[in-house]
Amino acid sequence: MTLTSQDAAELSPGVTFPAGFRASGTTAGLKASGRPDLALVVNDGPLQVGAAVFTSNRVVGHPVTWSRQAVSDGVVSAVVLNSGGANVCTGPDGFLDVHRTAETVGAALGVSPGDVVVCSTGLIGERLPIDTLLAGIGPARDALSSTGGPAAATAIMTTDTVAKTADMTIDGDLGTWRVGGMAKGAGMLAPGLATMLCVITTDAVVDAALADAALRAATRDTFDRVDSDGCMSTSDTVTLLASGASGVTPDPAGFTAAVTAVAAQLARQLVADAEGATHDIAITVTGASSQSAGLAVARAVSRSNLFKAAVYGNDPNWGRILASVGTVPAEVAPFDPDQLDVTINGVMICRAGGAHEPRSSVDLAASRDVHVLIDLHAGEEVVTLWTNDLTHAYVSENSEYST
Amino acid sequence: MTLTSQDAAELSPGVTFPAGFRASGTTAGLKASGRPDLALVVNDGPLQVGAAVFTSNRVVGHPVTWSRQAVSDGVVSAVVLNSGGANVCTGPDGFLDVHRTAETVGAALGVSPGDVVVCSTGLIGERLPIDTLLAGIGPARDALSSTGGPAAATAIMTTDTVAKTADMTIDGDLGTWRVGGMAKGAGMLAPGLATMLCVITTDAVVDAALADAALRAATRDTFDRVDSDGCMSTSDTVTLLASGASGVTPDPAGFTAAVTAVAAQLARQLVADAEGATHDIAITVTGASSQSAGLAVARAVSRSNLFKAAVYGNDPNWGRILASVGTVPAEVAPFDPDQLDVTINGVMICRAGGAHEPRSSVDLAASRDVHVLIDLHAGEEVVTLWTNDLTHAYVSENSEYST
Repeated sequence: MTLTSQDAAELSPGVTFPAGFRASGTTAGLKASGRPDLALVVNDGPLQVGAAVFTSNRVVGHPVTWSRQAVSDGVVSAVVLNSGGANVCTGPDGFLDVHRTAETVGAALGVSPGDVVVCSTGLIGERLPIDTLLAGIGPARDALSSTGGPAAATAIMTTDTVAKTADMTIDGDLGTWRVGGMAKGAGMLAPGLATMLCVITTDAVVDAALADAALRAATRDTFDRVDSDGCMSTSDTVTLLASGASGVTPDPAGFTAAVTAVAAQLARQLVADAEGATHDIAITVTGASSQSAGLAVARAVSRSNLFKAAVYGNDPNWGRILASVGTVPAEVAPFDPDQLDVTINGVMICRAGGAHEPRSSVDLAASRDVHVLIDLHAGEEVVTLWTNDLTHAYVSENSEYST
Repeated sequence: MTLTSQDAAELSPGVTFPAGFRASGTTAGLKASGRPDLALVVNDGPLQVGAAVFTSNRVVGHPVTWSRQAVSDGVVSAVVLNSGGANVCTGPDGFLDVHRTAETVGAALGVSPGDVVVCSTGLIGERLPIDTLLAGIGPARDALSSTGGPAAATAIMTTDTVAKTADMTIDGDLGTWRVGGMAKGAGMLAPGLATMLCVITTDAVVDAALADAALRAATRDTFDRVDSDGCMSTSDTVTLLASGASGVTPDPAGFTAAVTAVAAQLARQLVADAEGATHDIAITVTGASSQSAGLAVARAVSRSNLFKAAVYGNDPNWGRILASVGTVPAEVAPFDPDQLDVTINGVMICRAGGAHEPRSSVDLAASRDVHVLIDLHAGEEVVTLWTNDLTHAYVSENSEYST
């Protein structure tokens, strides 16, 4: 196995950072490239608490349909993830393929198939080579290791250029516990949920209700605030597994904060690796009348191909920002167009709806990071959304590669 | 004056096709390129009926604010249009610039400034060189001619590669009357209104109420059904002028149909000239429960950068189409994801939500036109929306050129 363009030593342990987890990343042979394509994450307990959130797309992959059911009782023993095929729009046979995958993983690990979450990523509309996938599960089980997090993170990559892992140690009054995670996703970063696949693990002692609440809060403030290209995947799945192996029961607020922090690290990595991007763009809307109003304005700007192409050209084009802001209906986000201020990388280039500091005082070429601050002067709420520029490389990747 | 990349003889007469109109296209000197930048269309009557529809953006140019007021009484004597500057977000001085433009045109023609519609296109946020513009109005008046339609159509071009004109003759029981038009717009083709600037003229005898109703119906079914890049302009203006010079009073339905036909011709030309496009894409949604449901589905697909990049790569990627369709909420467009059919250029490559005919049987490279047919199996309504592919040239034009 090769860690493409990365040294495994550089990656944080990710899902195997907390106690009670083993993982592996192996090559079943699903990808023509021969790269790793199968990841397995196993919760050795003592708890086997699980929660998950999924894409809000109405067209969903069979793995999503299966996994929604699998997590519904709050118990998850393992997550199996494959790249090389999404198993979406593959008919009844495709659902049988998920079922057989979960059964084979369950048998290999000695757990119930109904406690196995299945995630798949790759081309829509083509059956997986299921025999190849099933034959890979034994070797994946044999490769399981308490240091397997980086290998697992690598095996779920598709057009990602780097594997994505994160971890956090919490030293509390009651003891030390940990959260780790991995994610993949660089193309269909979504409005509803912005990653293709993510697994977060913790050795804290939590019940299913807290796991679910913490995960929903974390995704709302992290993955849901990434809108790279406005396209929503059919397969987005974020799973949280809790082993309880630390023996520490954190307070709910602290637990939610830690899960959110790890999710935020992963979301940030997704933005940084978005297909073909040369700029990471943080759009902060201040002075919004509500969170939803601010988010609607930020999302309108993040969806403007004209604005995103301008950023690629290092043009601080506030006119295109205002043109996008103006498309948000008044009932969604009240504001006075003549009161709008726009600040880019600290320079207020638009004030009260008109030109202010000269464009030339903003040098977008100096840094990958671009911070757009839009003040609506209509309230007290602040919202930040992450997106990227629209580049030649994005067009190339998505016109030459099928997903 | 040069007709760039086109021979004037190739253009239909456009706004001067109906009787009672003169037009000119001249060079005031607003553009660094030295190309024509000022167009004037004058209604010599006997009627001076006018109507207009504007962008639904909340951030609008000063010319839009002015012109909304100018047309409110149903009387329009002339339209003055400039490229080389949009006069948007230019503060109170920018509004004075519009006012002075209308006054100068009014004085030059001997009409009321309040009956002059003003349209501007170009960069947002920078004042027009107003003295240069005003100095050009006298020469523009002197150049007015009953064969000036093509010159006017050329003077309103920005990133358009061809001037756009259309005409139609109606031989009815009561006599012969005509409709003509011109349009420009290739970048910010909009969801709410898809052209930057358009003028349609007719020598039919109609009153202001019919002109307004016919224009609204025509734009709803033509310009509003174009969504090239999802970005809405701050300046979109479509004006209809009626001279009554034919002496023929058409029936309202026939009049609406003729205006719609000319608008459709112009809308089709906008799509064909969209920035950097290599494919014109017609998205037809059938089996929709309502017009609005079908339009929401078509618009979701037309906004998918992934789908549009795939078309650029000649990849009939129905998976990306279904992923877009699935983002439309059930309350907006009811359908069963497992019932969706997708036909591209006559080949049903997705049936009942899964693969059907092989992708290889669709050859997108063979033609510029792509027809996507999505059957929702949820009703009887049919809607068509026009869009384009997402190309390297689009990114180049919009990252290297400020608008």
